[in-house]
Amino acid sequence: MPIDLRSDTVTVPTEKMRDAMRFAEVGDDVYGEDPTINRLEQLAAQLLGKESALFVMSGTQGNQVAVLAHTQRGDEVILEEYSHIFNYETAGISTIAGVQARTIKGTNGQMPISEISQAIRGNDIHYPKTGLICLENTHAFSGGRVLPLSYMEEVYNLSRQYQIPIHLDGARIFNAALSLGVHVKDIARYVDSVQFCLSKGLSAPMGSILVGSKEFIERARKWRKMLGGGTRQAGIIGAAGIVALEEMVDRLIEDHNHAKYLAQSLSLIHGIDIDAYGVESNIVIISVKGLEIKAEDFINQLNQFGVLANTFGPGRIRFVTHRGITNEHIEKAIAAVRAISNNNINS
Amino acid sequence: MPIDLRSDTVTVPTEKMRDAMRFAEVGDDVYGEDPTINRLEQLAAQLLGKESALFVMSGTQGNQVAVLAHTQRGDEVILEEYSHIFNYETAGISTIAGVQARTIKGTNGQMPISEISQAIRGNDIHYPKTGLICLENTHAFSGGRVLPLSYMEEVYNLSRQYQIPIHLDGARIFNAALSLGVHVKDIARYVDSVQFCLSKGLSAPMGSILVGSKEFIERARKWRKMLGGGTRQAGIIGAAGIVALEEMVDRLIEDHNHAKYLAQSLSLIHGIDIDAYGVESNIVIISVKGLEIKAEDFINQLNQFGVLANTFGPGRIRFVTHRGITNEHIEKAIAAVRAISNNNINS
Amino acid sequence: MPIDLRSDTVTVPTEKMRDAMRFAEVGDDVYGEDPTINRLEQLAAQLLGKESALFVMSGTQGNQVAVLAHTQRGDEVILEEYSHIFNYETAGISTIAGVQARTIKGTNGQMPISEISQAIRGNDIHYPKTGLICLENTHAFSGGRVLPLSYMEEVYNLSRQYQIPIHLDGARIFNAALSLGVHVKDIARYVDSVQFCLSKGLSAPMGSILVGSKEFIERARKWRKMLGGGTRQAGIIGAAGIVALEEMVDRLIEDHNHAKYLAQSLSLIHGIDIDAYGVESNIVIISVKGLEIKAEDFINQLNQFGVLANTFGPGRIRFVTHRGITNEHIEKAIAAVRAISNNNINS
Amino acid sequence: MPIDLRSDTVTVPTEKMRDAMRFAEVGDDVYGEDPTINRLEQLAAQLLGKESALFVMSGTQGNQVAVLAHTQRGDEVILEEYSHIFNYETAGISTIAGVQARTIKGTNGQMPISEISQAIRGNDIHYPKTGLICLENTHAFSGGRVLPLSYMEEVYNLSRQYQIPIHLDGARIFNAALSLGVHVKDIARYVDSVQFCLSKGLSAPMGSILVGSKEFIERARKWRKMLGGGTRQAGIIGAAGIVALEEMVDRLIEDHNHAKYLAQSLSLIHGIDIDAYGVESNIVIISVKGLEIKAEDFINQLNQFGVLANTFGPGRIRFVTHRGITNEHIEKAIAAVRAISNNNINS
Repeated sequence: MPIDLRSDTVTVPTEKMRDAMRFAEVGDDVYGEDPTINRLEQLAAQLLGKESALFVMSGTQGNQVAVLAHTQRGDEVILEEYSHIFNYETAGISTIAGVQARTIKGTNGQMPISEISQAIRGNDIHYPKTGLICLENTHAFSGGRVLPLSYMEEVYNLSRQYQIPIHLDGARIFNAALSLGVHVKDIARYVDSVQFCLSKGLSAPMGSILVGSKEFIERARKWRKMLGGGTRQAGIIGAAGIVALEEMVDRLIEDHNHAKYLAQSLSLIHGIDIDAYGVESNIVIISVKGLEIKAEDFINQLNQFGVLANTFGPGRIRFVTHRGITNEHIEKAIAAVRAISNNNINS
Repeated sequence: MPIDLRSDTVTVPTEKMRDAMRFAEVGDDVYGEDPTINRLEQLAAQLLGKESALFVMSGTQGNQVAVLAHTQRGDEVILEEYSHIFNYETAGISTIAGVQARTIKGTNGQMPISEISQAIRGNDIHYPKTGLICLENTHAFSGGRVLPLSYMEEVYNLSRQYQIPIHLDGARIFNAALSLGVHVKDIARYVDSVQFCLSKGLSAPMGSILVGSKEFIERARKWRKMLGGGTRQAGIIGAAGIVALEEMVDRLIEDHNHAKYLAQSLSLIHGIDIDAYGVESNIVIISVKGLEIKAEDFINQLNQFGVLANTFGPGRIRFVTHRGITNEHIEKAIAAVRAISNNNINS
Repeated sequence: MPIDLRSDTVTVPTEKMRDAMRFAEVGDDVYGEDPTINRLEQLAAQLLGKESALFVMSGTQGNQVAVLAHTQRGDEVILEEYSHIFNYETAGISTIAGVQARTIKGTNGQMPISEISQAIRGNDIHYPKTGLICLENTHAFSGGRVLPLSYMEEVYNLSRQYQIPIHLDGARIFNAALSLGVHVKDIARYVDSVQFCLSKGLSAPMGSILVGSKEFIERARKWRKMLGGGTRQAGIIGAAGIVALEEMVDRLIEDHNHAKYLAQSLSLIHGIDIDAYGVESNIVIISVKGLEIKAEDFINQLNQFGVLANTFGPGRIRFVTHRGITNEHIEKAIAAVRAISNNNINS
Repeated sequence: MPIDLRSDTVTVPTEKMRDAMRFAEVGDDVYGEDPTINRLEQLAAQLLGKESALFVMSGTQGNQVAVLAHTQRGDEVILEEYSHIFNYETAGISTIAGVQARTIKGTNGQMPISEISQAIRGNDIHYPKTGLICLENTHAFSGGRVLPLSYMEEVYNLSRQYQIPIHLDGARIFNAALSLGVHVKDIARYVDSVQFCLSKGLSAPMGSILVGSKEFIERARKWRKMLGGGTRQAGIIGAAGIVALEEMVDRLIEDHNHAKYLAQSLSLIHGIDIDAYGVESNIVIISVKGLEIKAEDFINQLNQFGVLANTFGPGRIRFVTHRGITNEHIEKAIAAVRAISNNNINS
């Protein structure tokens, strides 16, 4: 088995999850009769401090449903230039919801407040209405950087001033909360809706949750149906989700520790460039531009050491820690990077 | 536990399915690495006689993805007036795919060939292009009626003449094949793509399959991602799907027998109107217009007898047989209908 | 010059219109500063008895903008199966507005009230919301048939009961009013918005008007911009529109008389089938199925007599009377039809 | 009459245009029978060196139609962050065409080639396909800056490498050609399609032209119909367009001279900030941030001097020269700015 550092999406369910799924009490969720899903949604709403919750099949589905439920066709949505919604969801918000993406380049996922403010459209016949602001916390593309609460509060205040809702792509909100040392509720209070993943570090096989006001979730439930996300005995999967929320949150600390250790160790390797202080959660991005090797080739050589990772833009490589990764794996990964770097020193 | 005749979607997974899910080998299906999903897709393609298959979360998702992959925005899609795609998928084909629904009233799900032919648009600047024809077999709204192979062949020939693809909403294609006494392949050969459900009579907790040409499925896979149907360790659910395909197909005969018996028995009850000969699969629709009671009230009284059913348009009630229904349940349901009818005779 | 009975869209502007355009006072209409357009919009609103009006480039644009302004994406729109919006606007309502067309077959353009009522969706997670009902008066496809006021009132009452807006495609509403012997206001009172054409029988070179409530027109104005219908010195065209409204309405009686005379004369020709009593405005549709000649060939032979007309479905031919057509033209057209018919008698 | 420097869209048609419109030969353009439109389209295609042309109602309509004809739903379009298509067309490309806007910040309208190159998507299931690159020449938002031919060639070469079409929003392409000292053909050769305006500096009352390959224009014609841009006796307007192309192009030199003189004069005023060398066509943008007055108030005071201008982002004011502006007007405008500036010196 290779050491798979490509993404925390590769985590497989725990034995406890498998047992929970094996014996899950189920019903028809389209009829609202799946007791396990109902319990999961209640639990999730409570945890995030919102009125209501909706089980969705994936983070992408949760985000798409949120955009559909917050906006009208012809609106504009403000989002960070490297956000998942803009970059990795196949243009869904424009194709499905008919809204225009207005991207702002951020630093560590933070769009400058002044630029958000300027991007909000006035009332003019040429302009779309600014219908939504999206944030992402942790922000995957910048290496799992965490939005500080003070930043979120600033965006929140701005959004209230202009009466524009905020949606948080909180696929890894538990990593953010851990890093900030706060409860997820303390993050969620600054936004109108949150999508977070039960898979990834929490290790459920699939599924995400969308939370928000009761009325918002009611609208979202219908849009989920349109996307084909209304399913039947979903409680099978939901059972794993409950375990994820009840038992897997605390373990994320291991992933963070692994990531920090990995980052610090890699930072000592000649030719590897990395901001080790910037590693705030479970993602480590290195640059191999200082070496005589392309990122793609670096990945291929890593594979020969039994280590999997992804390229991440030109000259960059991403490692993500998760439940399947042990201390030993991290050491092996470090050794592999060191060996490849030594062989490709930029003379 | 009530006798739930509302829909075959209420079936819960079998013990064997639960075991299969418990021990399913899984991987990240977005990366194409879930061995169970891969096996399921291969099995499904083979079974239907198509090149390739795609696991989707629901019948609605399979149908929406199919429409997206077959058409361009601005096209028109021909479908039966009471088809599921038109009636029960929240206008998805227009909102997501940007195509116009052109409905034709059918008899037992069969749109007259001459009307399909007339509905195909010529080349004119005012007209959308006819981009797709959709069929549904069995046709739920007409009471699970089965499209004869000869009819499908006629539509097929027409479609080849005009070079328009056909998608089959085969949510219950195994019921259709059973009723026709043919292999599902013999139905699928007359269409370019088929969506069929692993849930419903086949009893998997969730999930459907879309089959078609390799190139079509490749496009479909991307549209599935846009709808949020790309998931991670989907093999958990996929494992139940494999059991469904390998072991649950033959048992549909029971549902058909139950439905026929139910229909014949109900047809003898004074005030109940039903075409018992028209019951070709697992759906029984009765009219209570001959009684002094509204359909909604009839349902409520049924509930008091421990029997669940759905209204189905004004004055009509639908019963669907499935794995959770036994001979005894059927007898009890008949007795309940008889009792209510006797109490509400139109004097 | 051939006798052009293909459509009343072929009418060219009058000398008075040309003069009005030549000397029109103009400004930038996107800024709301074109005095001629402002006058036209005010005149049109007043005439139709609505709060506000919007100049649009064509009937199609007026209808599309109306659907956009009345509905939300994901809604369903009820319209007659042969309505212009459904049949001749290239699927625009689905592609642009993201709404699903729900067609009902009408008689002479009248959808049965009971079927409209049944088509209105209840509140169910599978259903789109019924967002709009569209009527067309006169109804082009049925041969310019006129919706009686009593019918419009019935639809109106139904729509109020369910709180669903009605849009009237009144491209030829002045023909309808003339036929009914009422003011256009008496028709418009039964709907929330009306689109009517300044071209066609009124002879302006281009342009239509959309009327409705002030708030509706404000929304519509923005959607018009999106479709590229916001123009600059539109008053040039608007000037012709004012002449159309002020001077051309009364002359429609000629077109109706011509159409009636044409219909009665054609009805006497052996092999020509026509419901002469059904000719209520300026459109005459005949069937040549009783002859040994295809409609396309009939048209070609008409052309050789210097008469232009359009086929209109299999075996049918449409003649439309308009300002460019004189008594003499009508006589020549009748003679041409008679001659061709005689040569193609079904023996 | 105020001195209207808000936009060149306020130009009114010339006497010669009015005469041409008065006597224009017209026909039904939906049938392709308007001789004046046909002549205009032929003339325009020839002038731009493309196979075919289409008359559209406005620049916005031309751009929207171009995006529709070049892309498929779900594609991504690369455009400059301050381009008209992205900023002033009410999110049309996302709502109508269902494509995602990917903006790149440019300098003087020039997106860095390396960033365009990076923005082009690889083949990945998460990514939309890059379906189109849009350029704008002259680039309005940056003050009418002109894209050098060498830049256009670079983008062209890049686009050929990736087989991605380029659309040019050439609303003011004649200003660009004048500034570059080349024929418009020399600009158009680097793109697949061009939209240019007959209104604005060329002074036609309304209308734009879209040019491209024969096949592209055929598709565009249908999309124009969907947007309601198919009109009847459009030749009335088209006649002015022919005059615009034949007689008004050369006069743009005056507008450029006026703009340059205005810019140089304003640059000498204390508190006014302007890059006079950057004035390459007919647009002058000044900053009043150096004064103790807000841009809105500055505009109001200008109005009292009989001068109209628009704010253009915080602290900025835009003046546009055009046919209605004389030497004397320019002097008066300069005097007005000087007076207001003197009264609002930042002490």
